[in-house]
Amino acid sequence: MLKISGGVTVPQGFCAAGAHVGLKRKRKDLAILMATVPCAVAAVFTTNVVKGAPVIWSQKALDSNKLARAIVVNSGHANSCTGDEGIKHTEQMAAATAEAIGCDPEQVIVASTGWIGVPLPIDIVLAGIPVVYGQLDSSTEGGTACAEAIKTTDSFTKEIAFQITVGGKAVKIGAMAKGSGMVHPNMATMLSFITTDVNIDQSLLQAALKESVPSTYNMISVDGDTSTNDMCVVMASGLAGNAMLVDETDPDYIVFKDALHRVNELMAKSIARDGEGATKFLEVSVLGSENQEDARKLAKTVVSSSLVKTALFGQDANWGRIIAALGRGGVQFDPTKLSIRFESSAGQIALMNSGIPMPFEPFEAKRVLSETDIRICIDLMAGVSEACAWGCDLSMEYVRLNGSYGAA
Amino acid sequence: MLKISGGVTVPQGFCAAGAHVGLKRKRKDLAILMATVPCAVAAVFTTNVVKGAPVIWSQKALDSNKLARAIVVNSGHANSCTGDEGIKHTEQMAAATAEAIGCDPEQVIVASTGWIGVPLPIDIVLAGIPVVYGQLDSSTEGGTACAEAIKTTDSFTKEIAFQITVGGKAVKIGAMAKGSGMVHPNMATMLSFITTDVNIDQSLLQAALKESVPSTYNMISVDGDTSTNDMCVVMASGLAGNAMLVDETDPDYIVFKDALHRVNELMAKSIARDGEGATKFLEVSVLGSENQEDARKLAKTVVSSSLVKTALFGQDANWGRIIAALGRGGVQFDPTKLSIRFESSAGQIALMNSGIPMPFEPFEAKRVLSETDIRICIDLMAGVSEACAWGCDLSMEYVRLNGSYGAA
Repeated sequence: MLKISGGVTVPQGFCAAGAHVGLKRKRKDLAILMATVPCAVAAVFTTNVVKGAPVIWSQKALDSNKLARAIVVNSGHANSCTGDEGIKHTEQMAAATAEAIGCDPEQVIVASTGWIGVPLPIDIVLAGIPVVYGQLDSSTEGGTACAEAIKTTDSFTKEIAFQITVGGKAVKIGAMAKGSGMVHPNMATMLSFITTDVNIDQSLLQAALKESVPSTYNMISVDGDTSTNDMCVVMASGLAGNAMLVDETDPDYIVFKDALHRVNELMAKSIARDGEGATKFLEVSVLGSENQEDARKLAKTVVSSSLVKTALFGQDANWGRIIAALGRGGVQFDPTKLSIRFESSAGQIALMNSGIPMPFEPFEAKRVLSETDIRICIDLMAGVSEACAWGCDLSMEYVRLNGSYGAA
Repeated sequence: MLKISGGVTVPQGFCAAGAHVGLKRKRKDLAILMATVPCAVAAVFTTNVVKGAPVIWSQKALDSNKLARAIVVNSGHANSCTGDEGIKHTEQMAAATAEAIGCDPEQVIVASTGWIGVPLPIDIVLAGIPVVYGQLDSSTEGGTACAEAIKTTDSFTKEIAFQITVGGKAVKIGAMAKGSGMVHPNMATMLSFITTDVNIDQSLLQAALKESVPSTYNMISVDGDTSTNDMCVVMASGLAGNAMLVDETDPDYIVFKDALHRVNELMAKSIARDGEGATKFLEVSVLGSENQEDARKLAKTVVSSSLVKTALFGQDANWGRIIAALGRGGVQFDPTKLSIRFESSAGQIALMNSGIPMPFEPFEAKRVLSETDIRICIDLMAGVSEACAWGCDLSMEYVRLNGSYGAA
């Protein structure tokens, strides 16, 4: 699995663009990712009961079983909780993009991110679509512009690309994502878009994505709140020329699926690292679990705990908070078998071994926790299943970002 | 239901004391609440899988079915995750208190609150018990000293007393509680202790408590973390002289049960109001639910949302966050029927009516949200069940309290 520079335009058959059309004050706010050929497409959407208009549209587009041609994304407005008008605006975005491309509107996935509950300035978007379409570019620059235009308050652009070999052919996978941010301070929305030129059956592509999401995007937490607009979409152009992947036991499919999973994991971790106000990246590994479901629940409970997150912010080896979080995670375990340690590039500190608190030097713990990337390793000693969750610390900057502004 | 001054010593048959014995630097840290007669006793304990030694002991004491005589509480150390030694320390606390009183150790409930995972300085506690016993006092001063000694970083002492009439007799109920705080910054622990002189069958007392807890203590959240040491205990001396309450359909039992519930609700709200770093008290009411379980889930999800809490801190009418929190609450509802409004003593602001966002003046919203007590009222328009949850905002002070210290 070879890392290569660039993002969503690296695989054959994709071009992209992003531009400022006027939804945000200055920064890029409208993006189009287009495939030159119809693509197999797979997607997962937010589990929030309240779904933004773009989620409702895109689910319908997926259900139409048409091969996809493009994704159009605006940042600045989430077009969520905007009623029938919001639904109409999304349809208009799909139709305008389809018209520019010359395809069916249901071949266009729509995503929006930003302020919830405010009508989308649809005229600005509709005027912008031909402009962005005119800038479509298959170079890495096009991919980067596109990745920039989907950001809200993300502090860095999230894109990545890899090359693998499938059926003797070079297959490329590219991705872009955005995480926790807001224009008018509001809901964080997670969007992740992946392109590949692998030739794959659509239902198998969906299976690969579905298998990967529970242990990647679903294992990150910035603040415990699930957006109404979350979306992860994969488009496969097939232009790599490999024999179509149709069998889930095919070793070539396994190679592709593993690569897709690795891309998802990297994008998920990148979003967690860029959590609002984050000063530290946190990985919680739960080992020795009876089953993976329990391990996931516990890892996610610890990574989401406000008390664990503030302790990390304060570089405090406060393991009592980790235990308390584990204990409320909805999983039975034996506290007398529990082992916990902190790890970072500066070393590791054992906090508890088989239920017995370990003495440690506070200055030594401080040294380990002063690093940016911290791993909390928890062993239940009850089985062989494991899971990882990713998040960030809870800083005063998080409160400032989300609290220190007026209602205007 | 007549409010009277004082706390746990107001009902007949109780005396209490609290003193500084050396677990904390300066403040009171050891409390005894004693009944002059054996008492019916009821209790509920933390649901955390990891239970502190005092929780393990007190559950056993309750299971012995002996009438209770006393509660001994230390603050400063939670005696949780302290292994077999911790269990032994709790037994020693019970035995020393029982010896002073002249009762069976299993008639003594033990509670501890403070630092998790550090051995309890048992010699200090054992030397302190006779001292505190010697100060036992049935006046309101005794009750207040006791309520002070169970605090950790609570900013105010939480006690209350009421008088009701049961079977023609004056019955009194007193209570004290502590909330979110720490000595060495650590887990918040919720403790609540209630006394009454009502004459009641022990199993009926347990039934009254069990019925009340789901809609009182279990509906508050400061930071989403459940302590390993939570405990709520009711002791009933029977000295009011009413005919013993033995029947759950007895109107006198209903009067007592309602009063107990009211006391629990007031103590729960008091704990939420004093949440770490809180600048605002938040009540979330979910109305029009198909069933109460759904209403509770949704109210608690909204009151626990970091994004809702930071918005309140910033006095921002950010209703998109409320909807997003509702949508991830694990309950199906129809977003197009949803109504949401903010209320405070400065007025109210409709944010959404039957799924349609309502225009409002930002300065008007700011005026409503500038008050200390804020109510978020959510109507699902799907039924007649409702629930309330209580919490507080998430301030920079919360992060500072829980993050800005070393590991030492």
